[in-house]
Amino acid sequence: MLDNLGVHAAGFVPANPAYEAVVRESFARQSLMATLGASIAHLSPGEVHLRLPYSPAFCQQNGYLHAGAIASVADSANGYAAFSLAPPDTDVLAVEFKINLLAPARGAEFLACGRVLRPGRTLTVCLAEVLAIAGTERRPIATMLSTVIVRPNPRGFT
Amino acid sequence: MLDNLGVHAAGFVPANPAYEAVVRESFARQSLMATLGASIAHLSPGEVHLRLPYSPAFCQQNGYLHAGAIASVADSANGYAAFSLAPPDTDVLAVEFKINLLAPARGAEFLACGRVLRPGRTLTVCLAEVLAIAGTERRPIATMLSTVIVRPNPRGFT
Amino acid sequence: MLDNLGVHAAGFVPANPAYEAVVRESFARQSLMATLGASIAHLSPGEVHLRLPYSPAFCQQNGYLHAGAIASVADSANGYAAFSLAPPDTDVLAVEFKINLLAPARGAEFLACGRVLRPGRTLTVCLAEVLAIAGTERRPIATMLSTVIVRPNPRGFT
Amino acid sequence: MLDNLGVHAAGFVPANPAYEAVVRESFARQSLMATLGASIAHLSPGEVHLRLPYSPAFCQQNGYLHAGAIASVADSANGYAAFSLAPPDTDVLAVEFKINLLAPARGAEFLACGRVLRPGRTLTVCLAEVLAIAGTERRPIATMLSTVIVRPNPRGFT
Repeated sequence: MLDNLGVHAAGFVPANPAYEAVVRESFARQSLMATLGASIAHLSPGEVHLRLPYSPAFCQQNGYLHAGAIASVADSANGYAAFSLAPPDTDVLAVEFKINLLAPARGAEFLACGRVLRPGRTLTVCLAEVLAIAGTERRPIATMLSTVIVRPNPRGFT
Repeated sequence: MLDNLGVHAAGFVPANPAYEAVVRESFARQSLMATLGASIAHLSPGEVHLRLPYSPAFCQQNGYLHAGAIASVADSANGYAAFSLAPPDTDVLAVEFKINLLAPARGAEFLACGRVLRPGRTLTVCLAEVLAIAGTERRPIATMLSTVIVRPNPRGFT
Repeated sequence: MLDNLGVHAAGFVPANPAYEAVVRESFARQSLMATLGASIAHLSPGEVHLRLPYSPAFCQQNGYLHAGAIASVADSANGYAAFSLAPPDTDVLAVEFKINLLAPARGAEFLACGRVLRPGRTLTVCLAEVLAIAGTERRPIATMLSTVIVRPNPRGFT
Repeated sequence: MLDNLGVHAAGFVPANPAYEAVVRESFARQSLMATLGASIAHLSPGEVHLRLPYSPAFCQQNGYLHAGAIASVADSANGYAAFSLAPPDTDVLAVEFKINLLAPARGAEFLACGRVLRPGRTLTVCLAEVLAIAGTERRPIATMLSTVIVRPNPRGFT
């Protein structure tokens, strides 16, 4: 899927057999994703793609999607890519991320493809590519490099 | 205002006497800011503060504001800090930004304080601090370092 | 070569037919690369790999290569990847870079593989992966995401 | 000291009464700092300034200090700022850093001023400003935002 960066599944083995259920359950609790209309397009160990439709409600001054909307889905894609490899009874939190905006976010919909570069017991590093989709064309518009922390006791964050 | 980083006004002279009007006009066109309920709390040459109320509609999985919502206002605060120093008939675009999340975004409202570190003819570097506000307490929750590009012909982006 | 990120040549067409000569000439003027003992291992349009041997003179407190030494070669790899696509009579300058250190820089030698993600008339975005090499093993130890500016009049920087 | 960012001592209380001795002992083991000729110019809880003289041996293609040399001292300044607040029997490691190059590194000497923004039990976030010094003039040339991890068992890294 990640045409431009060419990042392919690295054969990660999930530490939690129920990784799919816990990722979907957590994603469903992210109200920002619901507000943006984002959904899970792909979910496998170490890789999560989120689909984001264009909406005039999330734009910058010239009618393109705001960099913050793009960053939101890329951050969640990377976070859930990390979470898909985390042990049971943990939660994840973004430590930091950096995003390069390669082109204006013009398109009917967008795909934020997050991948784990290096899983860790405490810190996991992820790379996301965001593509603008128009018909059969997929154009990279952003790249995000993130650090995610895995923490015990998911309810400790509540 | 920027208690923690202690960044104070650097005495920038705006290149556009109408800087306040053009910043407010552009901000009013950012539909994401309206959707988030963000408003301009402070605007001076090289410095823009945006206020963001807490809303359950923009959260992550544990009910804190999503890092993407925080990043959105910090990005706009830095972008408009840069835009306040730009010449007439230009527009600004985020090239990239990096955000460190220092603490969960818990609070009744948030203040994203963007400041120009180095204005440039083409590229402007900005630093934003995001504070959580609860009563009289102000707690830093994020720091963003951004590169903004100033481009001629504002309608070239439309 | 970029096993981990799987980034492969994107079929870039160089704007300067003499790209190889100008990259090599500029690299030879970077005294830090000579001091570190770095050399060009691969050079093609949009992609530059730099080899760095381990040396006890460039270490952090525990005898691994210092993150600054790793960042130096990754920055040059990305800069020259960008420069290989630049028109004649230009020069490049790093605007900013972000590096994630994935593992301690332990190994006999290191390879910093820089690739252009998006070439631009003014700004070029690059991604580098740094690998530690020990025998036939290649282990990713760092990832860098950079913005490079292409400027006219190379001697304007001198 | 940090004129431009105006970052002042935040009244941190060191967790290790011997913080000064352990920082100086660790710094003395960083062979890259010795190779670059860097020295500690200031050391207090949560704040470390490193002085770097100009040398023609650490330059980029136009005779300015290479961004990697600047990044090296900024990374060490931030790392030791974090280490000055760490408990006994720990060590620090850079997780990631991001640097914006504001101006060419031209000058007789440079000062990398690292400060802790948020100390943490596991992760500490630091901000460094690098100044070029020429006579009485101090000109900001770079800003670095870093994440540092504090780990138990210092010899675990050896």
